[in-house]
Amino acid sequence: MTGTTWVEESGFLEGPVMITNTHSLGVERDAVIAWRVKHSRPGGAELWFLLPVVPETYDGYLNDVNGFHVHPGDVFHAIETAKSGPVEEGNVGGGTGMICYEFKGGTGTASRRTDAKFGGYTVGVLVQCNCGRREQLRIAGVLVGREIPGKKLFAKVSGLEQEDSGSIIIVIATDAPLIPTQLKRLARRASLGLARTGSISRNSSGDIFIAFSTANGGAANPVGLRHLEMVPNERMDPLFSATIEATEEAIVNALVAAKTMTGINNRTVQALPHEPLRQVLRKYHRLVEPPGRE
Amino acid sequence: MTGTTWVEESGFLEGPVMITNTHSLGVERDAVIAWRVKHSRPGGAELWFLLPVVPETYDGYLNDVNGFHVHPGDVFHAIETAKSGPVEEGNVGGGTGMICYEFKGGTGTASRRTDAKFGGYTVGVLVQCNCGRREQLRIAGVLVGREIPGKKLFAKVSGLEQEDSGSIIIVIATDAPLIPTQLKRLARRASLGLARTGSISRNSSGDIFIAFSTANGGAANPVGLRHLEMVPNERMDPLFSATIEATEEAIVNALVAAKTMTGINNRTVQALPHEPLRQVLRKYHRLVEPPGRE
Amino acid sequence: MTGTTWVEESGFLEGPVMITNTHSLGVERDAVIAWRVKHSRPGGAELWFLLPVVPETYDGYLNDVNGFHVHPGDVFHAIETAKSGPVEEGNVGGGTGMICYEFKGGTGTASRRTDAKFGGYTVGVLVQCNCGRREQLRIAGVLVGREIPGKKLFAKVSGLEQEDSGSIIIVIATDAPLIPTQLKRLARRASLGLARTGSISRNSSGDIFIAFSTANGGAANPVGLRHLEMVPNERMDPLFSATIEATEEAIVNALVAAKTMTGINNRTVQALPHEPLRQVLRKYHRLVEPPGRE
Amino acid sequence: MTGTTWVEESGFLEGPVMITNTHSLGVERDAVIAWRVKHSRPGGAELWFLLPVVPETYDGYLNDVNGFHVHPGDVFHAIETAKSGPVEEGNVGGGTGMICYEFKGGTGTASRRTDAKFGGYTVGVLVQCNCGRREQLRIAGVLVGREIPGKKLFAKVSGLEQEDSGSIIIVIATDAPLIPTQLKRLARRASLGLARTGSISRNSSGDIFIAFSTANGGAANPVGLRHLEMVPNERMDPLFSATIEATEEAIVNALVAAKTMTGINNRTVQALPHEPLRQVLRKYHRLVEPPGRE
Repeated sequence: MTGTTWVEESGFLEGPVMITNTHSLGVERDAVIAWRVKHSRPGGAELWFLLPVVPETYDGYLNDVNGFHVHPGDVFHAIETAKSGPVEEGNVGGGTGMICYEFKGGTGTASRRTDAKFGGYTVGVLVQCNCGRREQLRIAGVLVGREIPGKKLFAKVSGLEQEDSGSIIIVIATDAPLIPTQLKRLARRASLGLARTGSISRNSSGDIFIAFSTANGGAANPVGLRHLEMVPNERMDPLFSATIEATEEAIVNALVAAKTMTGINNRTVQALPHEPLRQVLRKYHRLVEPPGRE
Repeated sequence: MTGTTWVEESGFLEGPVMITNTHSLGVERDAVIAWRVKHSRPGGAELWFLLPVVPETYDGYLNDVNGFHVHPGDVFHAIETAKSGPVEEGNVGGGTGMICYEFKGGTGTASRRTDAKFGGYTVGVLVQCNCGRREQLRIAGVLVGREIPGKKLFAKVSGLEQEDSGSIIIVIATDAPLIPTQLKRLARRASLGLARTGSISRNSSGDIFIAFSTANGGAANPVGLRHLEMVPNERMDPLFSATIEATEEAIVNALVAAKTMTGINNRTVQALPHEPLRQVLRKYHRLVEPPGRE
Repeated sequence: MTGTTWVEESGFLEGPVMITNTHSLGVERDAVIAWRVKHSRPGGAELWFLLPVVPETYDGYLNDVNGFHVHPGDVFHAIETAKSGPVEEGNVGGGTGMICYEFKGGTGTASRRTDAKFGGYTVGVLVQCNCGRREQLRIAGVLVGREIPGKKLFAKVSGLEQEDSGSIIIVIATDAPLIPTQLKRLARRASLGLARTGSISRNSSGDIFIAFSTANGGAANPVGLRHLEMVPNERMDPLFSATIEATEEAIVNALVAAKTMTGINNRTVQALPHEPLRQVLRKYHRLVEPPGRE
Repeated sequence: MTGTTWVEESGFLEGPVMITNTHSLGVERDAVIAWRVKHSRPGGAELWFLLPVVPETYDGYLNDVNGFHVHPGDVFHAIETAKSGPVEEGNVGGGTGMICYEFKGGTGTASRRTDAKFGGYTVGVLVQCNCGRREQLRIAGVLVGREIPGKKLFAKVSGLEQEDSGSIIIVIATDAPLIPTQLKRLARRASLGLARTGSISRNSSGDIFIAFSTANGGAANPVGLRHLEMVPNERMDPLFSATIEATEEAIVNALVAAKTMTGINNRTVQALPHEPLRQVLRKYHRLVEPPGRE
């Protein structure tokens, strides 16, 4: 992930978080700058710099990662078509070629709202899930990966490094007014949600989490004293719970939304099959059946 | 926890890790120094200093924490009677007055050995568990706390701060030859084991984890080049798994070993009842019954 | 230094910073708690905890550090007689037995006020200086230690460790409204002031710096949204300069205020002699002579 | 700087450190990967990833930074023509458009060798100096910037941000066998050398320092136990001194080697004039005249 040193030092996130694969980080980063250069307002500051935040995970099993197929135009398109509303999940965007617990992975999202007496704040989490081994996968506390028939994906690839390349990006957004110290604490809780899905944060994983708040809009204004609102530390537990739960669910959502994909060298990664998953959860009394369904 | 800055800076743990309650940290720390002063070898260095590592958790619900009942003699006794072999669990030592997921908590321990092809190393974990709420407790992936009848402990205490004082100490020891960078990574994995038991790392918790290796015995010798052995980063995953699993089990062991206790002001904290726990696990098909038992 | 993990995590400094020698840290820490227990208001929260911040440096060359001569009563006295106004410097308090650049060291303080257009804020620095070697000492950019005749102090002590035990405590207080992220940046600048006096931050030194703001008084109130003021990052440079300059001056003040002392085992440490110091500075054109003096 | 998270986590630097300007970081990073893809050995691992380390500083005052003039071919050329021997200084490479203490800055280098009794190790430092204000510049402890006539460079540029964009890259290489914990301590000492030249580490500066050792060559081999050598912590002081001195000198060397340059928009930055510099140093008795010179 690039740009994080400055976020840590300044406390501010100064642009979009652009998620991509490991070997396209550079082009994404420079394209964010190029886009801003192109759209800078007349009369704006003449000299300025930008340190874009671009996290990445590795998709070289399914994608021709060394073909460098992401181009600046893709980045411009992503920025220009960004919109609010429902978020696409599964094999989309940076998540297209990702593998999660040896099933097809990708992009997932979930959110929680805290109780009105704790401010009624929303915590939204977006993950690009590319980590884990089949036998570790836990959904609703059940080791489902061990009970769903299917092949060990990485056993087919020789060597150690190949199996180690997994990692996960977790981006946490909230409208709760939090200062940077508090956002860092929120980001650290993401690993607790990840742990609930079974991850051991393998050796080479570059798991990195970033949390930002949309409150305190004018806080980065460089002129005059800034006025901030802040949730007291003593009231943060509901936000911690929300972060952990939304992270856990976002990972499950990425798995459930992803579709089986065949990539380079005719390699195929199967999606997590829905009906077998239901059966395992049913076996362990973890599935609440909707009315009218057996 | 005191002494950690120097461990972080130097990479070395230079004495025992002494675990106690929040308001006795100071006396424990100074007593460790006093003990060493008393036992220093004749002819030893004339001027030296020691920065003992003393983690603490808060036991003011059951214990008269402000009575300052730990005395230097207790510390001397602990050092002088330390021995290898089975470790006492439950209401012992620093864990005596601890509360874990609103059940009686305390000291717990567990270990794992890695496969011979990964070195056959042992990872041992000791916890002093003093965190969590009943409705969060997960054992074997099941939210057991919600299904075992009993009273909400902290609902009886008014105010916010009281409910927030939980934390956990996790000490990880291994005979795997790891350098400080690697031990830090091991320590970070402890939170993944903690997460599996349901913790959200509440607001005020001072959860701190320390990992040390008993290999490379002469590494701290100040004279001459030191020769170290190191497990390659690519071979650390089994150690990560071992740490996570042993942490999860050590917390469960602390809960299962602890006994119901009545402390100051006639406050009582119930132990996690064993038979109801078995029933809940059985309901979710998470209990492997021993042969001959129904 | 104890208590810093919680300051880092919470962003708040919740009590006095008590400075002492290495082997009295524990008694100071517990005594701060005991004092607060004794003085808690009737009707206050029944359960609470306190994690006092107690930095220390080692004074075993002049002081009978292993005699444990600091007692709780000394701590109570320090808290109860604390007052605003001029700060005593030199051989006082925790600084009594300290050695700085092989001259008698101790407590020093200095402050700067930023220009009114940058808010007119005050930055005050207090140091307990116990580090450095004579040949490193720089005052006003001049290597004065090398030009003032006198004995190498530590050459008389055999062994490596003895020479390495130096460190420095730097406490930075300001009335500028800064959030924790910004205070951490201020604290990091203290090392730049230290560097100007010649320090190389020797191996074993536990140099630790803490910065706090007296603004935003109600920020720690646990009820309701907190309202904070914050200096924009873009306006912090004058505060950085103030921190660096005040740190440099505080160290020089500690040296100039300290008096020659004879401690245990008849060891003597000479104060930095004022007239030879003036001569060296004059030689390098670094001394502005007051009117009427030659 | 990109790639540092993985260096911090793994302890290893896995490729070249490529230094560039802020808005060319991305292209440099991807080009390093592309170069390695192009030159991978036949039979090498099929799946691998690389997280290049690319620090940057901002040169938008003299350079058309938003023109994105660095291309992959420039990076290939840099890698392929890298050689040992004397290092070019001043307006070269990433340092071409840099400004240091409002004089023309750029690339600088210096080294120190420790005494044979401390191992005879070499510490080499390379800086890309792009920070500081004229009135802060200290050479040999003298505030030379204030005494050399010339214009305030940044006074001509309106706005705050413009003045704040300075930072410095400091790369430290040594043949001393140090483990990652120790290299991090070395890197932190670089700021002490920087401080001696007057820097206050201004608000927006992204000062980042990286240290690596060329000893323990096979340490990254993923198979079998690794055997490392390590200098004892107690013997690191000479390496700290070497780092601080070499950093200070490298910055001065960058200033002395740089030539006056006129860049975009006809902006000119003057080099530090040599003869006036000598005069100021002479005035403060800081210049040792070579024999035969007045």
